[in-house]
Amino acid sequence: MCGTKGCLVKCSPFPSATPENGTTDTTLININLDHGDPIMYESYWRKMGNRCDITFNGYESLSYFANGKSLCWFLESKLEDEIKRLHSVVGNAIVDDRYVVVGTGSSQLMQAALYALSPADQPEPISVVSAAPFYSSYPEVTDFVRSGLHKWAGDARNFEKNEPYIEFITSPNNPDGVIRKPVVNRDQGILIHDLAYYWPQYTAITSPANYDVMLFTVSKCTGHAGSRIGWALVRDKEVARKMTKYMEISTIGVSKEAQLRAAKILGVISDSCLDPTLENFFEYCRSLMIDRWQRLRQVVKANDLFTLQKYPLQYCLFTKNFYESHPAFAWLMCKESEEDCEKLLKEHKIQTRSGRKFGSDPRNVRISMLSKDEDFNIFLRRLAAIGGLTNGN
Amino acid sequence: MCGTKGCLVKCSPFPSATPENGTTDTTLININLDHGDPIMYESYWRKMGNRCDITFNGYESLSYFANGKSLCWFLESKLEDEIKRLHSVVGNAIVDDRYVVVGTGSSQLMQAALYALSPADQPEPISVVSAAPFYSSYPEVTDFVRSGLHKWAGDARNFEKNEPYIEFITSPNNPDGVIRKPVVNRDQGILIHDLAYYWPQYTAITSPANYDVMLFTVSKCTGHAGSRIGWALVRDKEVARKMTKYMEISTIGVSKEAQLRAAKILGVISDSCLDPTLENFFEYCRSLMIDRWQRLRQVVKANDLFTLQKYPLQYCLFTKNFYESHPAFAWLMCKESEEDCEKLLKEHKIQTRSGRKFGSDPRNVRISMLSKDEDFNIFLRRLAAIGGLTNGN
Repeated sequence: MCGTKGCLVKCSPFPSATPENGTTDTTLININLDHGDPIMYESYWRKMGNRCDITFNGYESLSYFANGKSLCWFLESKLEDEIKRLHSVVGNAIVDDRYVVVGTGSSQLMQAALYALSPADQPEPISVVSAAPFYSSYPEVTDFVRSGLHKWAGDARNFEKNEPYIEFITSPNNPDGVIRKPVVNRDQGILIHDLAYYWPQYTAITSPANYDVMLFTVSKCTGHAGSRIGWALVRDKEVARKMTKYMEISTIGVSKEAQLRAAKILGVISDSCLDPTLENFFEYCRSLMIDRWQRLRQVVKANDLFTLQKYPLQYCLFTKNFYESHPAFAWLMCKESEEDCEKLLKEHKIQTRSGRKFGSDPRNVRISMLSKDEDFNIFLRRLAAIGGLTNGN
Repeated sequence: MCGTKGCLVKCSPFPSATPENGTTDTTLININLDHGDPIMYESYWRKMGNRCDITFNGYESLSYFANGKSLCWFLESKLEDEIKRLHSVVGNAIVDDRYVVVGTGSSQLMQAALYALSPADQPEPISVVSAAPFYSSYPEVTDFVRSGLHKWAGDARNFEKNEPYIEFITSPNNPDGVIRKPVVNRDQGILIHDLAYYWPQYTAITSPANYDVMLFTVSKCTGHAGSRIGWALVRDKEVARKMTKYMEISTIGVSKEAQLRAAKILGVISDSCLDPTLENFFEYCRSLMIDRWQRLRQVVKANDLFTLQKYPLQYCLFTKNFYESHPAFAWLMCKESEEDCEKLLKEHKIQTRSGRKFGSDPRNVRISMLSKDEDFNIFLRRLAAIGGLTNGN
């Protein structure tokens, strides 16, 4: 019977996996693919040995202030240099004549951008929109302290008001991996480009991004989510200054240890792209993503219960090849129109995030593609088993 | 003539200092004592050699999640352990049956506490007060995004409304170093105790603090302001959960590198208090503070233009001795009632923070006592020179 150990073993091409506790009975383990925790990249960093080691002694980095001359007074100059170098190596964003603002992850930078871009002299908060399915944190980040500066106004496609607005454009999009453009396209629109996933392991780099406010994060680029380092590339000096002010009031800057370690790691990634004796970080991670996506598509095709988002082939300037997106999340849809996909998967001990949270349909779920190998393998076997169970039990 | 190099050299007991640029002409250097940047402790950490060294390799701390079982899901268990251990060693706060919530400095924890303690079901924001002179960041932190949850309502002594309120109690107080109790003392009051300076280098530890919400920060305890690590000790589980939620939405946790380094440093401080072969951190820093305060009081007494806050002798349970407070900031007042003290000092290239910013009088300024030796020495010489100038030039 499917869903039993016997079935799991037969269900090739899913490599057999032994749970951490040493038993082969995986039926009790809850697999959490709700968060996009990027621990998959650990294998790369292990291969790099001590190349990324960084040591802090007790008397370093005492001051609130950083050593640089940046407008962002707490930004370590090493980090600024390595951010600019990596963008130049990858070719995914214009860095010339941009101000770099560092944040405690890109979440803080979203709030800093909202703070900087919201009109300060208006009695009513500015509307904040994003096209559904939108990143599930945007409504929460916009509204959680009931700010009088900005308020969440939902799906950008339904925004009809003739008034100023802020639009988040996430490209590739979280949750569905689609390449996006602004959708409101009206006067008085202020745009924030969230480019967390615009890296070669996920998608083709088709041109260097060239927008007013661009957000990036170490978490999704390198896999070091625990460091909480994000950055913004900002065209306008006054906007960069206000974003820096936000960071100053909310956290008086950003951890120096995290900044200096991030600088080291970004540096190693740039080196790995330039030095043929090193394993190219993006090539390595791209191979992992391609492998996972191929296996997922096989299972989805076989059980006929679900569909997955499709992506076009695009020419990647970084890899010099045609490449289909292999996003950090799978956006899975139940074919059955009445189905609650999150609930269905939960019954099979697969924890995902419902389409509802992205302003979309409960037929959809977002599934992290960046989990540990073991969890990913169990997930695939269970997904296959759902097909078996539904067809025959 | 006072204010010249000749005078500066004569103005003993101020050790002569050579500015970093190698010149002895200090007249052009602007001395910034506005921020409480605690770089004074660097000498202690240098003495500790490599005892605080911590190395991160590339594959550590990738996950958003920490390794502990804390309600605060991103809190590293090593940090939780060392926080509790240090409080037990020093005796400055009750840790039993308290939840530890870690923040990106205590500024973020102030906001988290406001978020957690503000009623979520009220149409009007709750009033937030603190007795003047109050920490200059409270109004800004409360109001900067125009929250509908809470609003700054000024000096707690003037709060007359018969409605719920939140009161910040800073003890020892920033800016004036005074030991404080709540001042409103009415029903429906919610208290946040900001105990950033309740450490033995600044004040006598008279009893372990035992309040509902207590805020601490590494910056003022150890001097590692660049790490941006603070923590809250919280009695109520639901409040701790909401504070954790705030941190989750605003920054998805707190840098793991900063947490682990802070754990290491707090551990070394506890060791230094327990192991007689090590130099006791608090004793060392207390000596520095006593020396600076004695020298400052000498200058102030000599020039007859200013007065300083006085502090009572109190028995310290940690040092087992009577001790007068030697706060992290001096709260200096011009005797002349019309004088703008910040302006006066600025003319002498001493940058301080006006009493106005603390809800108080422009006759007062707050002056950091934690600067580099060199800056402190220049400050004292200039302060002495003001007396000379005013009396004779």
